[in-house]
Amino acid sequence: MAEDAGIAGDITSSATIPLEALASGRIGVRRPGVMAGGLTADLVFQLAAPDVDVTWHKVDGDELAPGDVLADLDGSARQILVAERPALNVLGMCSGIATLTAAYARLVAPARVRDTRKTAPGLRALQKAAVRAGGGANHRDSLSDAVLIKDNHLAVSSVGDAVANAHRMWPGRTVELECDHFDQVKAGVEAGADMILVDNMTPDEVRDVVVWVAGRVPIEASGGIDLDTAHLYADTGVDFVAVGALTHSAPVLDIGLDLDVRQAFLSNRT
Amino acid sequence: MAEDAGIAGDITSSATIPLEALASGRIGVRRPGVMAGGLTADLVFQLAAPDVDVTWHKVDGDELAPGDVLADLDGSARQILVAERPALNVLGMCSGIATLTAAYARLVAPARVRDTRKTAPGLRALQKAAVRAGGGANHRDSLSDAVLIKDNHLAVSSVGDAVANAHRMWPGRTVELECDHFDQVKAGVEAGADMILVDNMTPDEVRDVVVWVAGRVPIEASGGIDLDTAHLYADTGVDFVAVGALTHSAPVLDIGLDLDVRQAFLSNRT
Amino acid sequence: MAEDAGIAGDITSSATIPLEALASGRIGVRRPGVMAGGLTADLVFQLAAPDVDVTWHKVDGDELAPGDVLADLDGSARQILVAERPALNVLGMCSGIATLTAAYARLVAPARVRDTRKTAPGLRALQKAAVRAGGGANHRDSLSDAVLIKDNHLAVSSVGDAVANAHRMWPGRTVELECDHFDQVKAGVEAGADMILVDNMTPDEVRDVVVWVAGRVPIEASGGIDLDTAHLYADTGVDFVAVGALTHSAPVLDIGLDLDVRQAFLSNRT
Amino acid sequence: MAEDAGIAGDITSSATIPLEALASGRIGVRRPGVMAGGLTADLVFQLAAPDVDVTWHKVDGDELAPGDVLADLDGSARQILVAERPALNVLGMCSGIATLTAAYARLVAPARVRDTRKTAPGLRALQKAAVRAGGGANHRDSLSDAVLIKDNHLAVSSVGDAVANAHRMWPGRTVELECDHFDQVKAGVEAGADMILVDNMTPDEVRDVVVWVAGRVPIEASGGIDLDTAHLYADTGVDFVAVGALTHSAPVLDIGLDLDVRQAFLSNRT
Amino acid sequence: MAEDAGIAGDITSSATIPLEALASGRIGVRRPGVMAGGLTADLVFQLAAPDVDVTWHKVDGDELAPGDVLADLDGSARQILVAERPALNVLGMCSGIATLTAAYARLVAPARVRDTRKTAPGLRALQKAAVRAGGGANHRDSLSDAVLIKDNHLAVSSVGDAVANAHRMWPGRTVELECDHFDQVKAGVEAGADMILVDNMTPDEVRDVVVWVAGRVPIEASGGIDLDTAHLYADTGVDFVAVGALTHSAPVLDIGLDLDVRQAFLSNRT
Amino acid sequence: MAEDAGIAGDITSSATIPLEALASGRIGVRRPGVMAGGLTADLVFQLAAPDVDVTWHKVDGDELAPGDVLADLDGSARQILVAERPALNVLGMCSGIATLTAAYARLVAPARVRDTRKTAPGLRALQKAAVRAGGGANHRDSLSDAVLIKDNHLAVSSVGDAVANAHRMWPGRTVELECDHFDQVKAGVEAGADMILVDNMTPDEVRDVVVWVAGRVPIEASGGIDLDTAHLYADTGVDFVAVGALTHSAPVLDIGLDLDVRQAFLSNRT
Repeated sequence: MAEDAGIAGDITSSATIPLEALASGRIGVRRPGVMAGGLTADLVFQLAAPDVDVTWHKVDGDELAPGDVLADLDGSARQILVAERPALNVLGMCSGIATLTAAYARLVAPARVRDTRKTAPGLRALQKAAVRAGGGANHRDSLSDAVLIKDNHLAVSSVGDAVANAHRMWPGRTVELECDHFDQVKAGVEAGADMILVDNMTPDEVRDVVVWVAGRVPIEASGGIDLDTAHLYADTGVDFVAVGALTHSAPVLDIGLDLDVRQAFLSNRT
Repeated sequence: MAEDAGIAGDITSSATIPLEALASGRIGVRRPGVMAGGLTADLVFQLAAPDVDVTWHKVDGDELAPGDVLADLDGSARQILVAERPALNVLGMCSGIATLTAAYARLVAPARVRDTRKTAPGLRALQKAAVRAGGGANHRDSLSDAVLIKDNHLAVSSVGDAVANAHRMWPGRTVELECDHFDQVKAGVEAGADMILVDNMTPDEVRDVVVWVAGRVPIEASGGIDLDTAHLYADTGVDFVAVGALTHSAPVLDIGLDLDVRQAFLSNRT
Repeated sequence: MAEDAGIAGDITSSATIPLEALASGRIGVRRPGVMAGGLTADLVFQLAAPDVDVTWHKVDGDELAPGDVLADLDGSARQILVAERPALNVLGMCSGIATLTAAYARLVAPARVRDTRKTAPGLRALQKAAVRAGGGANHRDSLSDAVLIKDNHLAVSSVGDAVANAHRMWPGRTVELECDHFDQVKAGVEAGADMILVDNMTPDEVRDVVVWVAGRVPIEASGGIDLDTAHLYADTGVDFVAVGALTHSAPVLDIGLDLDVRQAFLSNRT
Repeated sequence: MAEDAGIAGDITSSATIPLEALASGRIGVRRPGVMAGGLTADLVFQLAAPDVDVTWHKVDGDELAPGDVLADLDGSARQILVAERPALNVLGMCSGIATLTAAYARLVAPARVRDTRKTAPGLRALQKAAVRAGGGANHRDSLSDAVLIKDNHLAVSSVGDAVANAHRMWPGRTVELECDHFDQVKAGVEAGADMILVDNMTPDEVRDVVVWVAGRVPIEASGGIDLDTAHLYADTGVDFVAVGALTHSAPVLDIGLDLDVRQAFLSNRT
Repeated sequence: MAEDAGIAGDITSSATIPLEALASGRIGVRRPGVMAGGLTADLVFQLAAPDVDVTWHKVDGDELAPGDVLADLDGSARQILVAERPALNVLGMCSGIATLTAAYARLVAPARVRDTRKTAPGLRALQKAAVRAGGGANHRDSLSDAVLIKDNHLAVSSVGDAVANAHRMWPGRTVELECDHFDQVKAGVEAGADMILVDNMTPDEVRDVVVWVAGRVPIEASGGIDLDTAHLYADTGVDFVAVGALTHSAPVLDIGLDLDVRQAFLSNRT
Repeated sequence: MAEDAGIAGDITSSATIPLEALASGRIGVRRPGVMAGGLTADLVFQLAAPDVDVTWHKVDGDELAPGDVLADLDGSARQILVAERPALNVLGMCSGIATLTAAYARLVAPARVRDTRKTAPGLRALQKAAVRAGGGANHRDSLSDAVLIKDNHLAVSSVGDAVANAHRMWPGRTVELECDHFDQVKAGVEAGADMILVDNMTPDEVRDVVVWVAGRVPIEASGGIDLDTAHLYADTGVDFVAVGALTHSAPVLDIGLDLDVRQAFLSNRT
């Protein structure tokens, strides 16, 4: 919020709206979607608008139809105007992600859609919560909480050594192996990988992997999968479909605030 | 970067790549676009990959063609892998914004495209710099650096009083008036507003405003303007076209890193 | 407050005053002046003295006479003693600035007195709010919210190019030109500068500028103006008089706290 | 520095000075005084102007005559312009404090002048270092590093109990007693106080205290002492004279930067 | 708490315990000891468990017997589970320090046990408060609040010069001299040191120092003193015994939380 | 380091050691142990002692014998003295943890010893790296990176539901079940738990679990296991032994700095 308020605060409101003016408003949505970011938006109001009552009618994960009211606001007009833009920015970004996630979730069921580490800087926790609100699953949160062995890691180590070392150094953490072709899948499963990520394979190639693995470990498909191709990968029988666009390219959901400012004739100054 | 590294750091690399392994890589682009975020990405490498040489071949504002190399990297393999995702996330997000901005800039010339305060939380400075790299102009950075009088501010104040108070309290700062209909434009220009923002008007209505104002103050058009309608508004003769999507809904530009890891047989441990 | 409390907290009070002792006090002023810093001082008490009731009788911008009571305090003695010095430091510094500003404001009316960027490190927002409380106007908050072209900027650029480039790159922001002699004023007004700052000119030279500009743009005078010379510049007809001393050399206003500590015989420990 | 740069950085320089322009400059002083703040100003240049060479000719504690050059600068013009104002604000504030401290130090010798906790919020370490540069001594840095028993602490405790408790709870820390009248001095010295602060007494009253104490503990005088009265207190034979104005009301020392910007025709862009 | 919650929060509870589930619990101790860390643990619950009532039955400094209940908790089950580990970690560490301090305090009475600067990074204030809760005294908090001259400081300065310079530069702060042999003690007392620290001497050597000093300044013994040898040093008649182990090697006190989770059938969602 | 330097810095050195004095020193160990904390200690010197050369002879994980030199230092005497205590505090704490971990690791081989979340506030990453240096394995870093179902989570959910929900909501993360008796183990393995934690069982009870599970999933033993009982649990055939004492009760390793200060007769002041 500091970045939006600036050094002198809201100079427009200070010049046009009395300190004691009141307002009531409603946060509404203009397109269908799925809500996310509610807890953070509520926190914005708590911090920047302590003298405003906020009543939420929707919570994260709810489906939204055009015209739905997410929340009613009542209290200090100036505080609402300061909190408005940061709160709407959070709600719009998060609900945009949840809405896109829900679209993928429907396309790939009963497989699950998962996000990636391709998030905006500093906003990973917020964006990953939005993916969950949309019915998606989270891949690892950081480089530190799961092992994902990619081709670069195999430049100086065999698949077998890499998987074994990872299990030895980080017992209890999932070891996933990214595979570009069938031979790596075989080597990985035999070396004891807990999960297989098939990257940039065609749906037909993925189907062969699914048949061969036969349920021994979960399989995830990734690599340029979009709204047009997601169902093709889901149909192969994989357990997960990874989509970076969930967090890096979801358009905002159009959420706005209608406000009714009224003059207050009371002051609590003594 | 802390959010990506987590408490234990990159556990995959620590299990598979020796501390002294070296790598060389190149950051390349797979789609046409405009570069932005280079300074911040460079800072990521400086902080997270101090033992890696980074040579940039493109700078912010450069046009990019598929296959272009943005930078060459050479040095510690582990450091490159830790810096990779945060650096690419910044480059992708910023270049996506610059690319979309450049598309609008071409459509509305000789008018200028401007951004809004609809930015991701905490990333405003980064996103507004990307708009500039794409040839766009920045609207106000925060509530504190320019006056923008909207309908909510006029609930308890006339246009004339609002503009006069703003000039008195904040001399030397631009006073812009958001107008929903022609009468407000007239009142605003007569009250001495420095700029007029016409919001949610049709191109025909905007044209009438342009004719009446006749160059006395600059005019900006806003309200749901997209790639299909931007040229209609530009054709009215306005000076600026405001587009929130520049920062809130630009898809990422597809920028990746190709890496070649090699074992190093030297160690500087004594 | 952390800098005042130190690692071990208030070791004098911990050795001499029981945890449950109560006190009542009043914050008073010993010299005439104008109040500022009240909101920040109140925040100090909220954070450092949560079990103390604070009742303010004066607010920022009020004129103060010797003996006036600014606030009454009642509650935990130890908390009042911890909050006392930081709160008085803020009130004294801000009210000192407001008092000096008010003195200048009276001297230059109907022109307005404006501050500069010559503020104590980290305290700009606080000090600029104090200037407003004293009836002054704020010049730009940071290098980022207005263009002010000085002689150094003209070393590699003509006045015309500088003003034009500034308008093109930063549309909607005020472009002010600092001028050392008459010719620059002419070039600036003709190039479309929004405001003229005449720096280090004599009152007679300034008067010539005012006559020539004839109201086309506002004019601000600056350069070593003090309490003795301010009215001479104001009399030339300029719109603003800039005074760096408002924030860099205002003496503190003498504000103190009288306290009455009493032993409490109750404890809320169970 | 963040408060001075703002979100978009120095928009004037970005519009008027090429990225590769160079400049040389010198920081000079226009009034006599004592230098302080040099280390912090140097840090400002290191952080905000990494491509600028800074050569200091004066260090903290040096006497300055009008026209003296404190430092020479050479390098990126834009970086110098961004660092200029924060660096000069620090130098001006600190040197102002050192200059005023030196004036008091001369007046009270061989007694020493000491500062108080009346410092600007967040700037205590900086301001106390400036007092030392001016030849003054520092009183306690925070509530935590020495015991100073005032009348409020004696409301629920006798002098004897307060001094004894302080020594028991905080062994090894100085216990100073603030006294308003002679009887407190006697009680304090007999109770084992390490130092006596005589507050708001006349010079004659202070002289009586000095005679009675007869060198058993150091004595400090405080309470509204200014440049006119400081020598009267020093003449009583006290060891220290405490002056709040050193840090709360010292006028800035007039330090400025002369700059010579030149166009550079080289670029290190490849 | 952020380090314990991670990016996604408590994923076990989110998968197994409904948002509206309630719980009651008690924090109990399984070994005898002395309580410390209560204020900080309470703060953990205030921040991480705002919907939980916490009733404390013990406060810092209280003796604890096995089975004692320190606090009762009642409220949101999920919030208690998030706050549990950070709160218990603080209570266990601090009470462990207080318990060890109390053991030393009994052994050395009527001398006092003092801590050192050998504290865990970032936890000094917390650990030093725990020493006080256990009946110990604090040595200096930082390098800045008292002078302690060690052999390294005497490499380029005589004892007499070092003590005199310290008194001159930092009047009002305690000057303590660390001595390895008798001659340094003599030189120090004669030079006016306020306190003598005898380091790595035998009890017999220390006794000679105590006899010679004869109460003129306090004496502190240090250097590898442990639970077996502390009473030998105390018996020499020194005023303080310094023990680094208080803060760097105290085992945790075994404090745990018993919890009773129950399903709640109400929700405050509208 | 800020907590150790305080507001005025190292006042002892400023009074006794010239700014330009040099020193050479060596960091040595007085007891056998295992080194940890080296990277962080090196960072302390980089930040607080930029003009000191540090040459490390040992790295994290090395076995240390009494008298071993960990590092040689050469450069500014004052900087070494400021960095000394924070650097030694880190090395001592971390090496103490590594040393205790190595002792357990030997006792339980071929099982592995694992740490817990019982770490000092804010120091988890540092302490967990020390466990790895000592040859131990890390349990989860935070509540967010693995699922660990305890009895409190089962109050409102069956074992089967809890395990299934955890797998569904957090696919790809390890689901571990804490069991107090045999029946829970059976339910957990049948429900698909990835790992079993047997808590507070006797070695005989644990042996029965190991036999029944027969290698289907890894087993970890926890609950009051100390240096006397660790081998009894290891002998049952479990894969891991969890020991909270590794991070909450490890005594410091005795590491010190010997320093030789010498006067420098050069100064780089011009």
